[in-house]
Amino acid sequence: MKLIFLGTGAAVPSLKRNVSSIALCFEDSGRFWLFDCGEGTQHQLKRASLKLSKLEKVFISHFHGDHVFGLPGMLSSRGLEAITERVDIYGPRGIKSFIKENRKIVNFHLTYELGIQDVPAKPMSSVYEDDKFIVRSNSLKHSLITYGFSVTRKPRYSFMVDKARKCGIPEGPMFRDLKDRKTIKLDNGRTFDGNDFVEKIDDGRKIVYCGDTAYCKGSVELAEGADVLIHEATFAKKEQELADRSSHSSIEDACRVAKEAGVAQLIITHISPRYDTNIDDGTVYGINDFYNEAKSFFPKTLLAKDFMEFDIA
Amino acid sequence: MKLIFLGTGAAVPSLKRNVSSIALCFEDSGRFWLFDCGEGTQHQLKRASLKLSKLEKVFISHFHGDHVFGLPGMLSSRGLEAITERVDIYGPRGIKSFIKENRKIVNFHLTYELGIQDVPAKPMSSVYEDDKFIVRSNSLKHSLITYGFSVTRKPRYSFMVDKARKCGIPEGPMFRDLKDRKTIKLDNGRTFDGNDFVEKIDDGRKIVYCGDTAYCKGSVELAEGADVLIHEATFAKKEQELADRSSHSSIEDACRVAKEAGVAQLIITHISPRYDTNIDDGTVYGINDFYNEAKSFFPKTLLAKDFMEFDIA
Repeated sequence: MKLIFLGTGAAVPSLKRNVSSIALCFEDSGRFWLFDCGEGTQHQLKRASLKLSKLEKVFISHFHGDHVFGLPGMLSSRGLEAITERVDIYGPRGIKSFIKENRKIVNFHLTYELGIQDVPAKPMSSVYEDDKFIVRSNSLKHSLITYGFSVTRKPRYSFMVDKARKCGIPEGPMFRDLKDRKTIKLDNGRTFDGNDFVEKIDDGRKIVYCGDTAYCKGSVELAEGADVLIHEATFAKKEQELADRSSHSSIEDACRVAKEAGVAQLIITHISPRYDTNIDDGTVYGINDFYNEAKSFFPKTLLAKDFMEFDIA
Repeated sequence: MKLIFLGTGAAVPSLKRNVSSIALCFEDSGRFWLFDCGEGTQHQLKRASLKLSKLEKVFISHFHGDHVFGLPGMLSSRGLEAITERVDIYGPRGIKSFIKENRKIVNFHLTYELGIQDVPAKPMSSVYEDDKFIVRSNSLKHSLITYGFSVTRKPRYSFMVDKARKCGIPEGPMFRDLKDRKTIKLDNGRTFDGNDFVEKIDDGRKIVYCGDTAYCKGSVELAEGADVLIHEATFAKKEQELADRSSHSSIEDACRVAKEAGVAQLIITHISPRYDTNIDDGTVYGINDFYNEAKSFFPKTLLAKDFMEFDIA
């Protein structure tokens, strides 16, 4: 898997950072999911060579414009490009009427199935699950209802083909059942347990995204043991009061979540454009100071920038 | 005055062209108006060094996403930047509920007065007028209600200060009245006609914007005698059938309007991304062919591209 950061700035787009959106890309065939969809996300997708036809899911954290105003245009462009692959949107209650009301006036054509689902309000809900992934949500602490999302890739196994062959098991449906760790029965009455025919490749991976939020226990709970935590830090520590007042995080807040949740890697995003100064002579607190401050609180930290890619084995 | 083309592509953004928006900039203090506001217009404004605080008016031609989906984000960013200068939006019926419904869910904060007005449905309506400008609209021919806009700058006059002084007229309110070509009366009973104290600098200027439309008499009527006609041409002549089917213009359609209206300069915009091929070896019909075709129908033609500027004396 791979993360591609499409928009890493706070509130308003700047020349260096677009507003929020992150793509989670899967190895196979270019498929990807999006987390948040600020205005201009479809433009960023083009620049990152991601195809709208390969977009499968969009998870919206909350209804601030810099996280959602790119959605109508992106859905409309999928129609204009005659894309037929289904897409599913998950967002806070109101997501259905946001899309419906936009379509009532700007009646864009859908050439594909569009699924729209409310994120359940209860803590640590399962939002989506298939045989490989489970996506959970948890309430965060912002000026309006806001969800964080965790994506857990389930443990992966490799199938011991030679062993199965040696046991005289015929290829086909029985191989598939064994791969899925089911028990099969041959015509001669012998049974085999699938668990004896697979080897674990890894214990799974966990990626967590906490968009706009102040420090809160909900983030810590969601991020528990994550391999990668993407957490907002709009402000430096010196703007802590501003962070508190606007229900955003300072660098220290984000790092505190990372520490308490015991995550392996923190990636900070949603950075106020004020730190992207070109002056780098030490007279003005700039993005390097922001980065160094983050490293001082939590050494395994990266600052996201637009089009940064991060691989997850 | 100056036109800055912010988005010159049709339907979906490409790496070369954003979706529709044009800025009309005034010499004095950076003020400007926008015609259409596709997604990413606020990003383009930043790249063109135009300030959101100087935006005074937005005219929306019709409710297709590539002409209007940039509006909510731009209005929201004005609030986030704590801009206090009023802005006025003019658009087809539905413009009020488009903004209202978006704000119902994404409740962005307004720090400024927001005027929203329906463009009158009747032909050649006056949409806005002040002492320097008059903006008119006319119905065009598209798949939904669509308006073209003409901006007429009224004739300009210079004031003959020395002559007024020689006549013993005191500076102040009486100078202002004379400049406005009113008649004034001095304390001694003498009267002066303002028309005798001004010299005409020019006969005014007329700029016309016809966004999405097939060829129609409404465009010709609106563009009559224009100094500059900005007209869409989504397709080359060889795609005339496609143009007709989608209620768009071919190059020939746009040039026909320019000829029949007797305009001095045609600028073609809303160009399908299909012509922006990098191949320029004559094997594929590309943007140069598109340009040459336009020149063959109407020699005084320019093709717009993003960030192109066009001065109007």
